[in-house]
Amino acid sequence: MYDETCIFCREIANKGNAAFVYRGLNILAFMDNAPIEEGHVLVIPRNHYENIYDIDKDIYLELQLAVKRISIAVKNVLKTDGLNIGQNNGRVANQVVMHYHVHIIPRYYRKKINWERENANIDDLEIIAVKIRAGIKEVKL
Amino acid sequence: MYDETCIFCREIANKGNAAFVYRGLNILAFMDNAPIEEGHVLVIPRNHYENIYDIDKDIYLELQLAVKRISIAVKNVLKTDGLNIGQNNGRVANQVVMHYHVHIIPRYYRKKINWERENANIDDLEIIAVKIRAGIKEVKL
Ligand SMILES: [Zn+2]
Ligand SMILES: [Zn+2]
Ligand SMILES: [Zn+2]
Ligand SMILES: [Zn+2]
Repeated sequence: MYDETCIFCREIANKGNAAFVYRGLNILAFMDNAPIEEGHVLVIPRNHYENIYDIDKDIYLELQLAVKRISIAVKNVLKTDGLNIGQNNGRVANQVVMHYHVHIIPRYYRKKINWERENANIDDLEIIAVKIRAGIKEVKL
Repeated sequence: MYDETCIFCREIANKGNAAFVYRGLNILAFMDNAPIEEGHVLVIPRNHYENIYDIDKDIYLELQLAVKRISIAVKNVLKTDGLNIGQNNGRVANQVVMHYHVHIIPRYYRKKINWERENANIDDLEIIAVKIRAGIKEVKL
């Protein structure tokens, strides 16, 4: 449930050290601090699960619904032209943090994505997070 | 609900022209006929929805549960080392078929993936599909 060696358990779920867009009882969503593109969001369970194989079924479904809701908000608020939704399982599949997480990655026609990642400033992330938080409240599923 | 111009509506949902691993009332899963890696599966709603924004909420959740179940089966049956789960929204995000679909892409340490796609033989796909179909029945969620 809590893994002291896991950066998401320790820094995000426990210390709350992130620009959050959503905090539910079981699910958290926050700006990726090394975004592939502006508006890159991660959605995670509060409790530690490693992957799609071991995550609790009800938590998984609650998380997928949050992904749908947040995706609509990100699209509306940031006026994205597209979104890539991705979830990696295993190091060979480029999973770096071994705590289940879904990537929501905005795409824009005017920008060419390079899939490289640079650390972002927390204040810049918070500016975007505030807008997405407001956008989420407007989404009717 | 049915889009005559959509290849998934016409060829998969209507004509059943694929190597299926799962056929439910609302959800279909089948071998991608231009696989990125051996065992590449697509999961789609029977009815036509374009993306994560417009897909019906209940169908979406039923589909996500199928993705979890099939992922476990693919991993067990093909002894994959990892899986990439991906879902693209919009042409800018590399969505080619404009019918909502989730990619399940096996990863293996022994093989380097190149993300290129070659058309596969339907008989070869059917051999893998038979195994995955059997594997799905063993999965307890
Ligand atoms: Zn964790
Ligand atoms: Zn990741
Ligand atoms: Zn269609
Ligand atoms: Zn696709």
